[in-house]
Amino acid sequence: MTKSRDITITEVALRDGSHAIGHQYTLEQVTAVSKALDEANVPYIEVSHGDGLGGSSQQFGTSLTDEMKLIEAAVSVSKQAKVAVLLLPGVGTMKDLRQAADIGAKMARVATHVTEADVSPQHINLAKELGMETVGFLMMSHMAPVAKLVEQAKLMESYGADTVYVVDSAGALLPYEVRERIRAMRQELTVNIGFHGHNNLSLAMANTLVAIEEGATRIDGSIRCLGAGAGNTQTEVLIAVLERMGLNTGVDLYKMMDLAENIVAPILKKPQEIAKDSLVMGYAGVYSSFLLHAQRAAKQFDIDSRDILIELGKRKVVGGQEDMIIDVASEIAKRQKIVNA
Amino acid sequence: MTKSRDITITEVALRDGSHAIGHQYTLEQVTAVSKALDEANVPYIEVSHGDGLGGSSQQFGTSLTDEMKLIEAAVSVSKQAKVAVLLLPGVGTMKDLRQAADIGAKMARVATHVTEADVSPQHINLAKELGMETVGFLMMSHMAPVAKLVEQAKLMESYGADTVYVVDSAGALLPYEVRERIRAMRQELTVNIGFHGHNNLSLAMANTLVAIEEGATRIDGSIRCLGAGAGNTQTEVLIAVLERMGLNTGVDLYKMMDLAENIVAPILKKPQEIAKDSLVMGYAGVYSSFLLHAQRAAKQFDIDSRDILIELGKRKVVGGQEDMIIDVASEIAKRQKIVNA
Repeated sequence: MTKSRDITITEVALRDGSHAIGHQYTLEQVTAVSKALDEANVPYIEVSHGDGLGGSSQQFGTSLTDEMKLIEAAVSVSKQAKVAVLLLPGVGTMKDLRQAADIGAKMARVATHVTEADVSPQHINLAKELGMETVGFLMMSHMAPVAKLVEQAKLMESYGADTVYVVDSAGALLPYEVRERIRAMRQELTVNIGFHGHNNLSLAMANTLVAIEEGATRIDGSIRCLGAGAGNTQTEVLIAVLERMGLNTGVDLYKMMDLAENIVAPILKKPQEIAKDSLVMGYAGVYSSFLLHAQRAAKQFDIDSRDILIELGKRKVVGGQEDMIIDVASEIAKRQKIVNA
Repeated sequence: MTKSRDITITEVALRDGSHAIGHQYTLEQVTAVSKALDEANVPYIEVSHGDGLGGSSQQFGTSLTDEMKLIEAAVSVSKQAKVAVLLLPGVGTMKDLRQAADIGAKMARVATHVTEADVSPQHINLAKELGMETVGFLMMSHMAPVAKLVEQAKLMESYGADTVYVVDSAGALLPYEVRERIRAMRQELTVNIGFHGHNNLSLAMANTLVAIEEGATRIDGSIRCLGAGAGNTQTEVLIAVLERMGLNTGVDLYKMMDLAENIVAPILKKPQEIAKDSLVMGYAGVYSSFLLHAQRAAKQFDIDSRDILIELGKRKVVGGQEDMIIDVASEIAKRQKIVNA
């Protein structure tokens, strides 16, 4: 009966959106949102800690509710929707993935840094053994040149991923950069291509439309923008825009608008917006976890934290290299002393 | 000393943003924002009631502070910036414009519905006589086909406008629609071309970048998105994006970020976001003033107000034709009865 979908949406408010509320989702909230998403005919609903299965920790933020209970709840109310989980190898384990599959998760999205696809084959293989649809999720995609990204995407394809995503974790990609990335991947890959945008530079929608123009058919959205940084491509708005463009998502626009207004908006303490920290993160192209370190170093050396972040972005510093922040701050302070001398 | 600007920004938070706070700007707020904008080297600061000079009224919303006092305050703290005023012939008068010029406004933006440029020549002429830079501002630009828009823009050019703007009042234009409009205008006009975007479909930034690609050099932005509907292209984010693209606005990014965070954000009761009403407005392409009428008619006929608004958009109903709303509602109700019978 249903017309085939031109674009297949994965709703991430119950995973990426978890960042926006400090991982404090209740069972009732996840049940209500999942039920409404299912009724609106959204095909995939991602449910996990913001940093993926096993993310609940002092380092990443402790979840109010056990994520397996949340996954179970989403599965229990989904008549047509499939529940997806995110897994970062090293954060989540094979055991977590088995448990998620046992309780009914049907899609595994295996996420690595854009240059580290080679840590994902075991998890992708296990997901396939478990009968799950698999997605390779290349995070911080702005940090690799196009050729490197394509190479990593092909690795994930070779491991058996059904779809490979360009993930703009820092909301740092400009539209032309999305265009060249998706175009190159479309030429080199045979699997589905996906795009996951963040709105730190107010470009989530622009980048999503460019990705679609270039052949991406799997798109992530987040109702009411609920996500890390400045949030994601706003799903209900995306549905409206794609309808205006004549592209079918199979998702009911009015139901999504009502869900956004009546169920999701009240969950947020304050609306998502592009504030200073998320803007700097997108402009510099750095991890959000660098912000606090940079602010501390800036105070110590009496410089502007933004100068540190921009320099870290230029040097393509990655998570785990936080000790470089002090070095960079010290160099900037020295340089500025010379200029001002 | 200053490198010439590739893109010339007009900040509209103190005019369009007035809608977002119910026209309740205080003298202190306008003074503080204008001073910071001037220090950040923003070239034009628009100050007026949200509906332009003379807009303060029961119909459009009563201003807390006399707009002439606000204009005076902005002028008094602007060392390099020029203060602009908006004027809708029929709302604002020639007398208002003289008064604004007398107290130091240097730019007049004369705004008409996209098909009614012919009501603007007297005001454009007067502005020129007063020594003001003049802008023709074609509102609800999505409602006219490209050829009609170009014809109207050429009228404004012939009256002496130094710049003609495509104004996406309802936030309804899609990127390809902006592209064809600006491209056609660039081919047919010799004056500057401007773009004023709204974010109802999360496309303000996308549309602005497309406009720039096609030759628009005058761009409106609003700090922290402060504007009617879902707000405008967010200025401080736009500055960041244009810097990343190598385009010079002459505006200091850090100062704009600080202004947004420390002065503008505290003015707002809650952050701007894309909520149900503004999304419907952008999707349907209708005036915000239709929303309440449609909601009332929907209740009366027991139908969905969104169906009414979408039909009004299709019929290109304009302000002043509010009596059509009941007719449309009645027709939809009849049609739905037949379908459900």
